[in-house]
Amino acid sequence: MNNIEHIGIAVKNLKDSNALFSKLFGKPHYKEEAVESEGVNTSFFKVGSNKIELLEATNPDSPIAKFIEKKGEGIHHIAFDVDDIEAEIKRLKNEAFIVLNETPKKGADNKLVAFLHPKSSNGVLIELCQEIR
Amino acid sequence: MNNIEHIGIAVKNLKDSNALFSKLFGKPHYKEEAVESEGVNTSFFKVGSNKIELLEATNPDSPIAKFIEKKGEGIHHIAFDVDDIEAEIKRLKNEAFIVLNETPKKGADNKLVAFLHPKSSNGVLIELCQEIR
Repeated sequence: MNNIEHIGIAVKNLKDSNALFSKLFGKPHYKEEAVESEGVNTSFFKVGSNKIELLEATNPDSPIAKFIEKKGEGIHHIAFDVDDIEAEIKRLKNEAFIVLNETPKKGADNKLVAFLHPKSSNGVLIELCQEIR
Repeated sequence: MNNIEHIGIAVKNLKDSNALFSKLFGKPHYKEEAVESEGVNTSFFKVGSNKIELLEATNPDSPIAKFIEKKGEGIHHIAFDVDDIEAEIKRLKNEAFIVLNETPKKGADNKLVAFLHPKSSNGVLIELCQEIR
């Protein structure tokens, strides 16, 4: 497991939050991307070598809409960059982590991704992501 | 504002969580440190160029104890490395962020730190930290 690839933050209104985080970081987001399979619109900020991903739900069944309903806006997940996502899924399953996507799926930002259930990782939703080459 | 310096995770039992995160990252924590003023014991993992800080409350009045009581274990804050914390506090106050520590205080890991109130930053507790030189 390499660097933190990004931190995902659940927001109610992407436009308002883009303005807010632009003030926080002193620079605008560098891209937006819709991920239809997840029911989210995303935007990305670069902070040093890390990224911050803002996530806005596009429908009430989106995991982001459910998260905000339950917990309010805030940090949703941490994503770690991995070199070989299938090997990492196998390793973490052997260590008793609950892997939500045994077959990695296509995520935002040209990545293959898989999530670990927060109940096996101290309440933290963890995303593994591997750049699609 | 530079890199993510660390992500803080609130845990109930530091020993158990050290074992869990060692499995997650495939390596042990590299140090532990008590911060008496905050009522916490901390441990640190290095993941690429970032750090993960686990925080365990040492008394029921600790902010970490209160956080866990309200929200359960999980991600507590994101800390960003800054070059000049006093200038950054001033800049963010001017941008209408609520700064909880107008005078930076001594945090873990040889840092001067200041927090932004989550209600001014989309539900995210943000720590600014500057290495003490």
